[in-house]
Amino acid sequence: MNKFWSPAIQSLVPYTPGEQPRIDGLTKLNTNENPYPPSPAVEHAIKHFSVERLRLYPDPDAGRLKDALASEYKLNREQIFVGNGSDEVLALAFMAFFRQTRPLLMPEISYSFYDVYANLFEIDYKKIPLDESFRVQLSDYSHENGGIIFANPNAPTGIAIELADIEALLKRNTESLVLVDEAYVDFGAESATSLVNKYPNVLVVQTFSKSRSLAGLRIGYAFGHPELIEALERVKNSFNSYPLDMFAIEAGCASLSDRAYLNKTCQQIIATRERSAEALEALNFVVCPSSTNFLFAHHRTLTGAELMTYLRERKILVRHFNKPEIANYLRITVGTDEEMERLIAALKAHPNIAS
Amino acid sequence: MNKFWSPAIQSLVPYTPGEQPRIDGLTKLNTNENPYPPSPAVEHAIKHFSVERLRLYPDPDAGRLKDALASEYKLNREQIFVGNGSDEVLALAFMAFFRQTRPLLMPEISYSFYDVYANLFEIDYKKIPLDESFRVQLSDYSHENGGIIFANPNAPTGIAIELADIEALLKRNTESLVLVDEAYVDFGAESATSLVNKYPNVLVVQTFSKSRSLAGLRIGYAFGHPELIEALERVKNSFNSYPLDMFAIEAGCASLSDRAYLNKTCQQIIATRERSAEALEALNFVVCPSSTNFLFAHHRTLTGAELMTYLRERKILVRHFNKPEIANYLRITVGTDEEMERLIAALKAHPNIAS
Repeated sequence: MNKFWSPAIQSLVPYTPGEQPRIDGLTKLNTNENPYPPSPAVEHAIKHFSVERLRLYPDPDAGRLKDALASEYKLNREQIFVGNGSDEVLALAFMAFFRQTRPLLMPEISYSFYDVYANLFEIDYKKIPLDESFRVQLSDYSHENGGIIFANPNAPTGIAIELADIEALLKRNTESLVLVDEAYVDFGAESATSLVNKYPNVLVVQTFSKSRSLAGLRIGYAFGHPELIEALERVKNSFNSYPLDMFAIEAGCASLSDRAYLNKTCQQIIATRERSAEALEALNFVVCPSSTNFLFAHHRTLTGAELMTYLRERKILVRHFNKPEIANYLRITVGTDEEMERLIAALKAHPNIAS
Repeated sequence: MNKFWSPAIQSLVPYTPGEQPRIDGLTKLNTNENPYPPSPAVEHAIKHFSVERLRLYPDPDAGRLKDALASEYKLNREQIFVGNGSDEVLALAFMAFFRQTRPLLMPEISYSFYDVYANLFEIDYKKIPLDESFRVQLSDYSHENGGIIFANPNAPTGIAIELADIEALLKRNTESLVLVDEAYVDFGAESATSLVNKYPNVLVVQTFSKSRSLAGLRIGYAFGHPELIEALERVKNSFNSYPLDMFAIEAGCASLSDRAYLNKTCQQIIATRERSAEALEALNFVVCPSSTNFLFAHHRTLTGAELMTYLRERKILVRHFNKPEIANYLRITVGTDEEMERLIAALKAHPNIAS
């Protein structure tokens, strides 16, 4: 405690991102990064960027990037917001929409930044349990609320929600905003982008950090009705006018120009994921059905903590969450085939894992 | 108004950044950008950056950049915070320190983002008038307060505050934080960085956007007591874990490695500024004494609005503020000698400007 702090700061418990150690020879399967580099179009754009231009401010509206997104996703510029990673887009959305008298609803197990935002902005919230198979059941989101947020596919479970269930929720829940966080949607779930033209109460948030291999550049975006986008712009322009730098705008546009590369690398990751899930099941793991670039799994006899430590000693990083409901699980990013074979081989070498 | 908005959003009046038009042949003297490119070390760092790395998240703590700042400014890493431009650093500081029951004090005329932040975070504030020569008189900041913020040099006046006056304020005002916004300090004011080791209640905020010619990359930072930095880290990690992308970290470090270039370009701008101020005075302008890379001036007979329009028609952009106290002034960025000669020639050609 320090007398110069705002009183509200003292009770903040910040989000803990996965580790980013720089250790040679590490197999890094802990932060859901894409194992493939970004599209060659990104490299081309960066190599041809005139560094002299950096003396100028970027376009505060990132208009070129919005136009490229509009063209790729068949929307208008007025339906698009861009920000410094989807984390910033989510934070601004919490300010813009969820500071209500009624509580925000979110899944009991989901992206753990949601409650951090709620605490930062002093937003009351209520957590809705998953069902016994770890699925988000949107029929359970029937309490009076000032907003609903969930991830589709959900994290860290990796399980997708049916688009029909989301549409039914939008029809039922007409008085508050429904935010669908689609960070992992390109790996196999159905996007709610198609609902943006039909419903004024849905905001879809996506990112360039996962399927587009641009985590290092911090680009996130949201799709929604122009009046929802206006609220985000108001908050953004009251907070930081230029959150996207020139490289983010350039690289984002370049990535959007290469849909074939996105499709190819996503298909590779999906194929590796399915093979890896089978290999883990053969080693006595229970694996949630994943529509993402990670697998959420627990072993039938070994704890998550001991497996994480065991793998770490072998220079393989996976993510483990210290929460009672999921303490036995590991979240394993889908890497290249070679990285996943390294993981499987390390697990097979464990004295107590029967293969 | 839209029923999905947080009620507080409706009354927000966002900050209006200067225009960023992309028009060929424009002389752009409206957003205080540096007329010189960034250090050649920046170009080298970017050309040698391996684009493949962008698939990974950046270091959330930007440790290398903090270490480079620590080394350049003779501080410890624990005394340094970095963010997505000094605007983001300021926004996070408002959340971390100024959400108090007593009002924040700020100059009546200063960076107009300060009241935008205060409104966004529902912070009560009191504006202290400048003296008759447009100077910030810190002896006037004696009201009970929950914090004090000012820019040194002040914007848009360009006038510096004596470091002794800042130190006297820190000694007097021991119960709340004093934030010194030094965006323009390298152009001729004395930094309060030297006070960071002596006073636990001072936070110094600087940027790479002006003197280091990196506005396009969004890098700001703060110096202060480790407990102040901890508050900023808490808020940042509750808002957005990775605000600085890989290029910002790389280019920031490269820029810090080339102090000679910084000194040389700042000296060039100062020399151009002094020549331009004299030329404007010869054209019947009253020019505030500037310690920045801009000049704040008004003509003795012509209004600010008419001069801005006149210059704009000649493809010269300068900034004009629609506030009664300063409506007659123009804020003119110091460009290259050639750009300033173009400005002076255009003014000389005005039928009602006697030379």
